[in-house]
Amino acid sequence: MRDVFIAGIGSTAFDKHAGQSIESLAVGAAVDALIESTVDRGQVGALYLGNFISGPLNGKEVLAGIVADRIGLPNIPCTKVEGACASGGIAFRHACLAVASGQVEAAIAVGVETMTHASTKQTTAALNCAMDNENDGPSGLTFPGLFGLAWRLHAQRFGTTRAHVSAVVRKNKRNGLRNPLAQMGADLSDEEVAASAPICDPIQLYDCCPTSDGAAAVVVVSKALADRIAAGLKHPLVQVLATAQTRGSPHIGGHGDLISFDATVAAAQRAYEQAGVTAKDIDLVELHDCFSIAEVIDSEDLGLVPRGQGGYWAHEGRTAVDGDVAINTSGGLLAKGHPVGATGLGQVFEVTRQLRHTHPNQVQGARIGMTHNLGGTGVACTVSILRGVQ
Amino acid sequence: MRDVFIAGIGSTAFDKHAGQSIESLAVGAAVDALIESTVDRGQVGALYLGNFISGPLNGKEVLAGIVADRIGLPNIPCTKVEGACASGGIAFRHACLAVASGQVEAAIAVGVETMTHASTKQTTAALNCAMDNENDGPSGLTFPGLFGLAWRLHAQRFGTTRAHVSAVVRKNKRNGLRNPLAQMGADLSDEEVAASAPICDPIQLYDCCPTSDGAAAVVVVSKALADRIAAGLKHPLVQVLATAQTRGSPHIGGHGDLISFDATVAAAQRAYEQAGVTAKDIDLVELHDCFSIAEVIDSEDLGLVPRGQGGYWAHEGRTAVDGDVAINTSGGLLAKGHPVGATGLGQVFEVTRQLRHTHPNQVQGARIGMTHNLGGTGVACTVSILRGVQ
Repeated sequence: MRDVFIAGIGSTAFDKHAGQSIESLAVGAAVDALIESTVDRGQVGALYLGNFISGPLNGKEVLAGIVADRIGLPNIPCTKVEGACASGGIAFRHACLAVASGQVEAAIAVGVETMTHASTKQTTAALNCAMDNENDGPSGLTFPGLFGLAWRLHAQRFGTTRAHVSAVVRKNKRNGLRNPLAQMGADLSDEEVAASAPICDPIQLYDCCPTSDGAAAVVVVSKALADRIAAGLKHPLVQVLATAQTRGSPHIGGHGDLISFDATVAAAQRAYEQAGVTAKDIDLVELHDCFSIAEVIDSEDLGLVPRGQGGYWAHEGRTAVDGDVAINTSGGLLAKGHPVGATGLGQVFEVTRQLRHTHPNQVQGARIGMTHNLGGTGVACTVSILRGVQ
Repeated sequence: MRDVFIAGIGSTAFDKHAGQSIESLAVGAAVDALIESTVDRGQVGALYLGNFISGPLNGKEVLAGIVADRIGLPNIPCTKVEGACASGGIAFRHACLAVASGQVEAAIAVGVETMTHASTKQTTAALNCAMDNENDGPSGLTFPGLFGLAWRLHAQRFGTTRAHVSAVVRKNKRNGLRNPLAQMGADLSDEEVAASAPICDPIQLYDCCPTSDGAAAVVVVSKALADRIAAGLKHPLVQVLATAQTRGSPHIGGHGDLISFDATVAAAQRAYEQAGVTAKDIDLVELHDCFSIAEVIDSEDLGLVPRGQGGYWAHEGRTAVDGDVAINTSGGLLAKGHPVGATGLGQVFEVTRQLRHTHPNQVQGARIGMTHNLGGTGVACTVSILRGVQ
């Protein structure tokens, strides 16, 4: 497989975008990525679009072709991919594969979702499409329920406390404060986190990511094309060292132990192998903190923090922007927001800004970054490793 | 890119499958394809699932991961792809690409849809997700409306008559009679076709494909794996000479001329080039006859019939099983049925049976076959060319 480089990125704010169509958000991000990349539209050979629930919430599909039409791409393969909350990461991986396999010299991945226009009931029902309802439906288990169970087990097993998990919330909300693209930022006290509305014990409101609209896009190119355009780029290239995609059990009973997600462990392992680096080399990561406890678990599954230490590390500041490994400097899903299909590409957008050294929460000397995008009850996962080419 | 071979196929009947879940249909087809292929589950390196509207109609997504779980595949990348009615063809192409690019030695593509459990209103609304509603919504144009306009133009330009188009209906319904997997077969007279209920002038009921449930699956393998398993296979291998995927305008105003779909013309051209064959070499084709007039147009767009002659050829029997080029020997969408996400893989299933010489409507000496899967208003298209390895 050939080397792949990120030449351009684009993103809307993750926020409420009342009155804007899902197409218009995707087009905004895609055009920004294309312009920044300096790649001519005629050179883009494939488009992958990550989206999860535009069908149920907007009555709109074939978005890959519609977005390609609006941004003036030629007659190329345009494919929507779906893997619940990992849809954006899957779109990124497929754009990379199209270049890596020699099919095309440049490809664009776009992720998009609009959710805030729908009622809570509609949104909840649509998000529930990510569940294996034939199996988990009868138990009445929901996503907050799943992560609530995981939290309890983690607390029992490793002594993880409310204060440990609150440290994740406080860090990410604080990071969100300085990221203009984030939906919400705040400087919260432990007391404020603990006093937020109960959702599903022990999960409280501030432990949950918000409902969001947004889009992000990335243009990837081959080495040959990267060499041709490098001199004209405003920002240095970022190399895609690895993109791995795995699956785990779609239903809760298939998970051996809720303190870990098999799909994440396997994806990280494959990504490290592909990239030829180890967890110690990772300066920062954007990982899938759909709930605060998920960040604790993910950080351990990715091998960035020793098993059971995720809460402790957060509490000790070791996952802050200036910590041992910087986790979710964007604010993560908790503060930046979670427009489902866009999230995976938003992560690539944020890590790319870090590796270009232009991030609002810059990690000093950031060289290697990681993204981690998890779908459903861990049924789909992507992990990518990126390296700055300074 | 490496050579790719079809080692196993599976399909449910295309029909009403009341009470069966969408997962169970997909699993049935996938298991049949796997067993026939003799490929060990552990060797399958990727799963692609084509589906269009399970979100709106079933409240179920992440079907790729769910199906992989049910059929016991290992922890591999599982991706749902969507391109409206071309979703199945896109799944097939991506499975082929995974093998051709050297990522995996074997991949499985599954297509599935369930529609008949929903009300006509729900189904119509869901199918409408394939429209570019921001552009075409205000005009009130529907899919029968689009193909009605195309029919009128074709009639004006080339003298295509009701009897010409009825010949397509009669042929496909007759072919369906002999295909046990077809939803409906009939021996119709011109009068019966012309007397069926008006839908959208000049389109009548028998000019439209039915609403269907169904699934189809195909296992593709590399040359190295094909060589290892060939001796143990019950049926000869079929080589995938080409799979092309294109896009056309998602909205009607973007089509230069409604007597042709750009996406089909481009996909056919690329497929012929890739395969190193010409239209003259094609013995049979399964093409996207969502409406009878679509078969006329598609047959011309694919270069199988001279422009303007599609209706004449059908009327003269030149597209029958024993004609110059056999079109839709399965019964096509009109008689076999159109479970949207499954259709593209159903076409590969049917052409493979022809090239193995085991089809219920066998084309004598069939050697090279083609599939053509068209989505939305021509926004997405796949064309594949297959060759029997006898």
